Amino acid sequence: MKVLDSSALDALPSRYRAQFLNSISGIKSASLIGTISKEGQTNLAVFNSVIHLGSNPPLFGFTLRPTTVERHTYNNILSEKVFTINHIHQDIIAQSHQTSAKYDFHVSEFEAVGLTEEYLGSIAAPFVKESNVKIACKYLNDYVIEENQCRLVIGQISHVCFDESFQEDDGFVDLTKANSVGILGVDAYVQATMLDRFEYAKPDQPVSSKYGSQES
Amino acid sequence: MKVLDSSALDALPSRYRAQFLNSISGIKSASLIGTISKEGQTNLAVFNSVIHLGSNPPLFGFTLRPTTVERHTYNNILSEKVFTINHIHQDIIAQSHQTSAKYDFHVSEFEAVGLTEEYLGSIAAPFVKESNVKIACKYLNDYVIEENQCRLVIGQISHVCFDESFQEDDGFVDLTKANSVGILGVDAYVQATMLDRFEYAKPDQPVSSKYGSQES
Repeated sequence: MKVLDSSALDALPSRYRAQFLNSISGIKSASLIGTISKEGQTNLAVFNSVIHLGSNPPLFGFTLRPTTVERHTYNNILSEKVFTINHIHQDIIAQSHQTSAKYDFHVSEFEAVGLTEEYLGSIAAPFVKESNVKIACKYLNDYVIEENQCRLVIGQISHVCFDESFQEDDGFVDLTKANSVGILGVDAYVQATMLDRFEYAKPDQPVSSKYGSQES
Repeated sequence: MKVLDSSALDALPSRYRAQFLNSISGIKSASLIGTISKEGQTNLAVFNSVIHLGSNPPLFGFTLRPTTVERHTYNNILSEKVFTINHIHQDIIAQSHQTSAKYDFHVSEFEAVGLTEEYLGSIAAPFVKESNVKIACKYLNDYVIEENQCRLVIGQISHVCFDESFQEDDGFVDLTKANSVGILGVDAYVQATMLDRFEYAKPDQPVSSKYGSQES
């Protein structure tokens, strides 16, 4: 195995280091975040940083770096206090990636990349019609990570839209059935295949599969 | 599609809601975090919340909920200021999941689940010998998410160990070649298969594959 220490990491060219470090954190979620400006201009941007923060209250978060593209999303969220999270599936990875291009603020990425706006009830922010799992969030707060000026945005889930056929009896939604993809680094898209689901682990019991396919 | 609003979410039984909301955030990273106490007691715990926060300086983060199991990890990190992140691959998912059992503090999960401690240079925290991608971090800071008392722990990467055969020319490490898995919800493990990697997107150009396999 190759070992890189801090000095070796520091010595890597900037883009190479970014590709390297972005890719080794592990598999990431692949979402399109939909927002709308005060003037009614819609925006859609691919994010690989949506995370679950809690279930009671239901909180999701995502991180923002200080780039032009992502600022459109952030400014709209601060202004309208609402955003949608739309899972990316295998058939829309190319269009989804294209939302990362630095389009002018007056261009809607929906139109530019060929995805379809969809609205639900009184929620101002647009959903992605093509998505299989869609979530609306109310903006709650954000935290600046002082170490690099990155920002963690916190939203409370107000609505979840999904196909019930993906859901198991205990509430779990199997995203492999929704064809939701993952992201490696900033530009690679991966398909997920279920290996196994395990029962709640206890110190005095062996691991046991929820699907009965594996024991140890 | 089924739509659940805030009232419907609030009405779900607690465990069902947790399974549901944990699973719909998207695919998550699958890591074992290795730590050591002041007294030399090692600890190993599965996490699905390791994220990349920045490349310069090289920062990773992970979230902690206030549970007993995770507090062992956090207390050790606060005390020794160091932790390791070890990718979970397909052959160790059962052992990795078993680290989530609430073992007594004086039991090392390494021994309890059958994974092997490995040490590198002067780094006090244990790595997982069986892992294909291993990262050492120095503790920098943590942030309390006031909305639910969740904690975001920030570490600076000091060392990265990986097989160079997984790496592409631009620095990207293909975790599908490392057999790194992802987590859905809190207990499902998924295999990742590469769909495509795209070039940096530009507004006036169509999406283009880095592998030449797809165009749009």
